[in-house]
Amino acid sequence: MQNLNTTSMQIRDNRLWILDQQALPQRQLWCPADTVAQLVDHIRALRVRGAPLIGLSACLLLALLAEQGMGCSRLRTALETLRQARPTAVNLMNNLARMAAALDGENFAAAMVTEALRLVEEDRALCQAIADHGISLVTPGSRLLTHCNTGGLATAGIGTALGVIRQAAALGKVHQVWVDETRPLLQGGRLTAWELGELGIPYRLICDAMAAGLMARGEVDAIWVGADRIAANGDVANKIGTYSLAVLAHYHGIPFYVAAPHTTHDPHCPDGDAIPIEQRPAEEVTGVSGSFGSCRWAPEQAQVYNPAFDVTPAALISAWVLDTGIVSPAMAAAGIFRRKLATAIG
Amino acid sequence: MQNLNTTSMQIRDNRLWILDQQALPQRQLWCPADTVAQLVDHIRALRVRGAPLIGLSACLLLALLAEQGMGCSRLRTALETLRQARPTAVNLMNNLARMAAALDGENFAAAMVTEALRLVEEDRALCQAIADHGISLVTPGSRLLTHCNTGGLATAGIGTALGVIRQAAALGKVHQVWVDETRPLLQGGRLTAWELGELGIPYRLICDAMAAGLMARGEVDAIWVGADRIAANGDVANKIGTYSLAVLAHYHGIPFYVAAPHTTHDPHCPDGDAIPIEQRPAEEVTGVSGSFGSCRWAPEQAQVYNPAFDVTPAALISAWVLDTGIVSPAMAAAGIFRRKLATAIG
Repeated sequence: MQNLNTTSMQIRDNRLWILDQQALPQRQLWCPADTVAQLVDHIRALRVRGAPLIGLSACLLLALLAEQGMGCSRLRTALETLRQARPTAVNLMNNLARMAAALDGENFAAAMVTEALRLVEEDRALCQAIADHGISLVTPGSRLLTHCNTGGLATAGIGTALGVIRQAAALGKVHQVWVDETRPLLQGGRLTAWELGELGIPYRLICDAMAAGLMARGEVDAIWVGADRIAANGDVANKIGTYSLAVLAHYHGIPFYVAAPHTTHDPHCPDGDAIPIEQRPAEEVTGVSGSFGSCRWAPEQAQVYNPAFDVTPAALISAWVLDTGIVSPAMAAAGIFRRKLATAIG
Repeated sequence: MQNLNTTSMQIRDNRLWILDQQALPQRQLWCPADTVAQLVDHIRALRVRGAPLIGLSACLLLALLAEQGMGCSRLRTALETLRQARPTAVNLMNNLARMAAALDGENFAAAMVTEALRLVEEDRALCQAIADHGISLVTPGSRLLTHCNTGGLATAGIGTALGVIRQAAALGKVHQVWVDETRPLLQGGRLTAWELGELGIPYRLICDAMAAGLMARGEVDAIWVGADRIAANGDVANKIGTYSLAVLAHYHGIPFYVAAPHTTHDPHCPDGDAIPIEQRPAEEVTGVSGSFGSCRWAPEQAQVYNPAFDVTPAALISAWVLDTGIVSPAMAAAGIFRRKLATAIG
């Protein structure tokens, strides 16, 4: 396969390399992902993370394995194993469905390579299209708040919510970004802070529970988040803490925008209740761990509740900003998310 | 002075010792506080914390210094220095006003000792009275959510909000406590988890941004928090993150209770806007540090916003549970907090 280079994923000499997102920002450590077991381990440990990136890395590995001569039936098993790596984000399932179709044909190795590279290119274009639509919603001088990481690290392109912010900043429309640290895994404090720093966009890091006070004081003009799955009624599963922000935004009359590629949309999932929510290990809450070190502060026997995602009901969302266009609450209420949204909206 | 023993403060052989709350729960480390500079350092570093405990420790040290022969004018300076150790909690100011009155008399050393010990005894009684009033608001089988630490560690007695929970649990009314970890300083994850574990009360630890999802799923019956200052209109300053919970409780129709001694009430402070909010160092947000270890995960140059407290407007509070009685929203609206509340309410 041809070489490939994104912020957090590379193909070099027919091997897939991923930038270890648990090691950032302290270390920029590239890890190989040569086998399905290795990649699943990277995904579960969040070395590979971000709904779009998870899907793309799985497709690229399958294409490489096909090219290296893996047979059709082993490839099908590999595809099934990868599909189950994480349950909430639907991009993985959607991308793998396209790889499965490629696998059905005669010259499946070449078809899979073509399909995987097409998905990467599409993702880049999706990000750009999301940003192009999203900037129309950003007013000049905005103080924007974001949660988790939805930037170049999470996608093959410039990102989803952070891609909009980046594009808006390039046009001089962003006064400052408030970055939720995003406990437990600190994707905001580590990754979004790092990306914004690299891009030279002014930001201030806060603990998640500080956002409400900022909203009360009128210091937040809009909230931008990504999505791991958009259901047929417009409900959105995203990183734990997103729902909290949506309720707070609603109370304070602040716009709350979800930015995502149409591949995040799952018309087969009726509503938020039907989205499986991954529960993660207690150790993520009783302490922190990463290349920055490891600390455990809670009592040894502490019982923990640790859902990786929460669901934001459609009623709290001001707009869904997709690559195919902007969905308004009225369009969502009229049932637009019940059909596929692969073509331009409106 | 006679020996004295509370969960987190002792007088032994005429020396004040404090239990280092930055070292808990990993280590139970008692530190001497022999001078004003030492105690101020303990308070600023949150080794001594909790609005009631800060006030009491300052009074006990002043009494010990008076007993050791410190003169009147040096004691006045010491009192002023202690008053400025932390700006938000009003118990410190209220307690020191009583010590200043004792200092005005002839036999001031003995008077200060008497007054400091009386304040400790009063605090124990205040906690018990708060709990006695508060349990009437706890329905059997309750799943209660709390923030920060308001227990025996923060007071001389059983605590304020956590004292109510403890009393309710002793009466079999508590199914489970949800404990907010309370970033940045993790008073929930370290101290409340430790206290509840010691008391054998079932709890589950969560990251602060997980509370909203629990409320949406109907898994929170009431929220109990303490207060650092109650203004004349009923607005409450408390640990950062409290306001977020109050808005979320309001949205989900969940009762939101503030438990505090009447000494937390400041009738001279018109409303929340007039409460000074302490800003704390960036290092608390860019990482964590304590006897459990030290980690810094954010980029070196990260800009940070780190207020220690936020303000919850009276309109979001279901009841203020004081030692002197329960204040309803109607009583607060009628102006009850504009007068002193040292005698029984209602």
